[in-house]
Amino acid sequence: MNTQQNTTEPIITDICIIGAGPVGLFTVFEAGLLKMRCHLIDALPQVGGQLSEIYPHKPIYDIPGYPSINAQELVDRLMEQIHPFKPTFTLGERVEALRKQADGSYHVIGSEGTVIHAAVVAIAGGLGSFEPRKPEIPGLADFEGRGVSYMVKNPEHYRDRRVIIAGGGDSALDWTIFLSDLAKEVTLVHRSESFRGAPDSAEKVFNLAEQGKINLLLQSNLSSVHGNGTLSHVGVIGKEKRETLLEADALIPLFGLSPKLGPIADWGLAIDKSAIAVNTFDYSTNVERIYAVGDINTYPGKLKLILCGFHEAALMVQSAFKFVYPAERLSFKYTTVNGINPF
Amino acid sequence: MNTQQNTTEPIITDICIIGAGPVGLFTVFEAGLLKMRCHLIDALPQVGGQLSEIYPHKPIYDIPGYPSINAQELVDRLMEQIHPFKPTFTLGERVEALRKQADGSYHVIGSEGTVIHAAVVAIAGGLGSFEPRKPEIPGLADFEGRGVSYMVKNPEHYRDRRVIIAGGGDSALDWTIFLSDLAKEVTLVHRSESFRGAPDSAEKVFNLAEQGKINLLLQSNLSSVHGNGTLSHVGVIGKEKRETLLEADALIPLFGLSPKLGPIADWGLAIDKSAIAVNTFDYSTNVERIYAVGDINTYPGKLKLILCGFHEAALMVQSAFKFVYPAERLSFKYTTVNGINPF
Ligand SMILES: Cc1cc2nc3c(=O)[nH]c(=O)nc-3n(C[C@H](O)[C@H](O)[C@H](O)COP(=O)(O)OP(=O)(O)OC[C@H]3O[C@@H](n4cnc5c(N)ncnc54)[C@H](O)[C@@H]3O)c2cc1C
Ligand SMILES: Cc1cc2nc3c(=O)[nH]c(=O)nc-3n(C[C@H](O)[C@H](O)[C@H](O)COP(=O)(O)OP(=O)(O)OC[C@H]3O[C@@H](n4cnc5c(N)ncnc54)[C@H](O)[C@@H]3O)c2cc1C
Repeated sequence: MNTQQNTTEPIITDICIIGAGPVGLFTVFEAGLLKMRCHLIDALPQVGGQLSEIYPHKPIYDIPGYPSINAQELVDRLMEQIHPFKPTFTLGERVEALRKQADGSYHVIGSEGTVIHAAVVAIAGGLGSFEPRKPEIPGLADFEGRGVSYMVKNPEHYRDRRVIIAGGGDSALDWTIFLSDLAKEVTLVHRSESFRGAPDSAEKVFNLAEQGKINLLLQSNLSSVHGNGTLSHVGVIGKEKRETLLEADALIPLFGLSPKLGPIADWGLAIDKSAIAVNTFDYSTNVERIYAVGDINTYPGKLKLILCGFHEAALMVQSAFKFVYPAERLSFKYTTVNGINPF
Repeated sequence: MNTQQNTTEPIITDICIIGAGPVGLFTVFEAGLLKMRCHLIDALPQVGGQLSEIYPHKPIYDIPGYPSINAQELVDRLMEQIHPFKPTFTLGERVEALRKQADGSYHVIGSEGTVIHAAVVAIAGGLGSFEPRKPEIPGLADFEGRGVSYMVKNPEHYRDRRVIIAGGGDSALDWTIFLSDLAKEVTLVHRSESFRGAPDSAEKVFNLAEQGKINLLLQSNLSSVHGNGTLSHVGVIGKEKRETLLEADALIPLFGLSPKLGPIADWGLAIDKSAIAVNTFDYSTNVERIYAVGDINTYPGKLKLILCGFHEAALMVQSAFKFVYPAERLSFKYTTVNGINPF
């Protein structure tokens, strides 16, 4: 998915969408109907926003026309729906800044150096970017990017390495199972005897431990990190209250992600109750060419519902059109009458 | 579907929804989440509004989460989705007037005498009520309801009767086929040699005519109606330009329906470009307790899209709640967390 990244050349698009949650995704469709191309950038390694990160397996009942739909299935259907309009993605990279260009367009700057050039910026940032909950270990920050990471962006990175995963939820279980085949050695450290994650994943982990394919350290906590520039050892304290030092090339604490408004607060946009104030005419912010749709925005009557974000996206693109095609007149057509015209 | 009608006792409900198009239907769901019951009334004999009446077999591409969905299927899915909240319906009856009661609630008055008592009125009237295109025949109006009707509300009404249907579209073909089994005699009168309706329906009609099960009068036009109080004969002019009088108990001209704002214009609501002006906070009109959602309303940025009406319905019910449960505090809950609680 991470089609273009770490390039020095900017990625060129019509609308840069910050946030690939359900509303960011559907914005691609509405933009596509008006012949506008989109690039999406999201801090998470996968698309789907809160749905994929927080409740992928739960049914949603208030998506119109779906008496019930699994959150991840809705994300998959949206991906299918936008496919004709060939969106491009930068995943696992947080947007840090927006830089206005002389011609009014924007450069959207990612935390890993990605630059996206766009006529219009649509912020679909939900509750903000999901930030990892980090364990309190002295000096941990020094090893971030040097052995320590809080999400798995590219599993290949761990091939033939000694990996320590910490946590008891689905992410910890799922990555333990997945990396057990790929890494040289996988150790799962968890503070209690039982797991919060899906029972069948927990069972798989117990089986892998019995078969000697992973090391399972229960009732244990991370205590220290060591290394000369890059990570070499991780200290773990078990039930005997003694610290053991384990050799490790990588440490992945997976204690969940919580959303934080983050850098969005510093872009000069009018903020109201941790959300971006917009008008309901076109969901524009106080800054020209910058729009905000979905959970990230606020206006009188706002409800943080997926279906509301869909409506906001539809109105937003009508207004964005004039910045992408200044010379053209917009004509409104029904999909049923006009069809969709793929790129 | 026509569960309660022509009663002198009013039908009691929380929200009376005028119009059973997609937006009226989804309003039932959003109201149901807040424990509010709904009664819907529509001038058409079936639910679904424009989707069922104008383009039931066409795919729609911009319903979020459905890369493509047949219009009638969307209506069916919405009916399934609202089922837990047990909406009741009055179909085939146009709303003529709203009467404010002493306690602030409303009586919604139907053209056939139905009275609906509701704390809140939600107008989801689309482009207005669909009015039949009527042929120009002297004295035709005198026989309306006395043998002449412009839509089939209850097919049983035609059992063992001599029926003349006029028209060349799907409705004329479909009802000719359907009634050929039920009526004593069916005659289809059509001005040209070929039909606008679905080719396979046309083929069926030609077959029925060959088998002598219906009379098919092509290149023919209705010319006169006769009877003593109720219809007894219909005049038809064929290609020989001579008028023939046919015995008939019922005449059903099916020349299509076209939407007209109709009585809605006379209810004291602020009207702007043939639509009801609302604010975007809660989609309320200038009159307390009366809301307007879907194609029937207008506000800056308005798009006549189904998905926009869904959003409007969600915000509207939040505001309507205070009139239905004046003593209660509204708390907002996700369906995923709270489930739906059927009535
Ligand atoms: C438990 C739970 C149950 C819910 N149930 C329902 C329900 O039944 N019905 C319903 O309609 N809604 C429900 N919701 C709410 C629903 O999930 C949100 O309304 C929806 O996710 C909003 O979509 P979005 O696209 O606006 O934002 P999100 O889904 O939050 O996606 C925003 C994305 O933006 C990214 N992002 C933010 N800032 C940056 C940045 N600076 N750089 C890069 N990326 C960034 C984030 O990483 C995230 O992926 C529920 C929410 C929760 C938590
Ligand atoms: C050919 C065509 C293609 C379209 N394609 C799309 C598309 O691809 N995507 C999209 O989003 N939209 C599309 N639309 C528009 C879409 O159909 C409307 O937005 C939608 O139907 C609006 O729903 P509604 O519930 O507000 O009103 P409607 O569907 O119009 O329903 C209103 C109902 O109210 C009833 N009514 C009105 N007045 C009265 C009264 N006084 N008493 C009783 N009943 C009354 C009417 O009989 C009607 O059944 C299309 C429309 C057409 C005509």
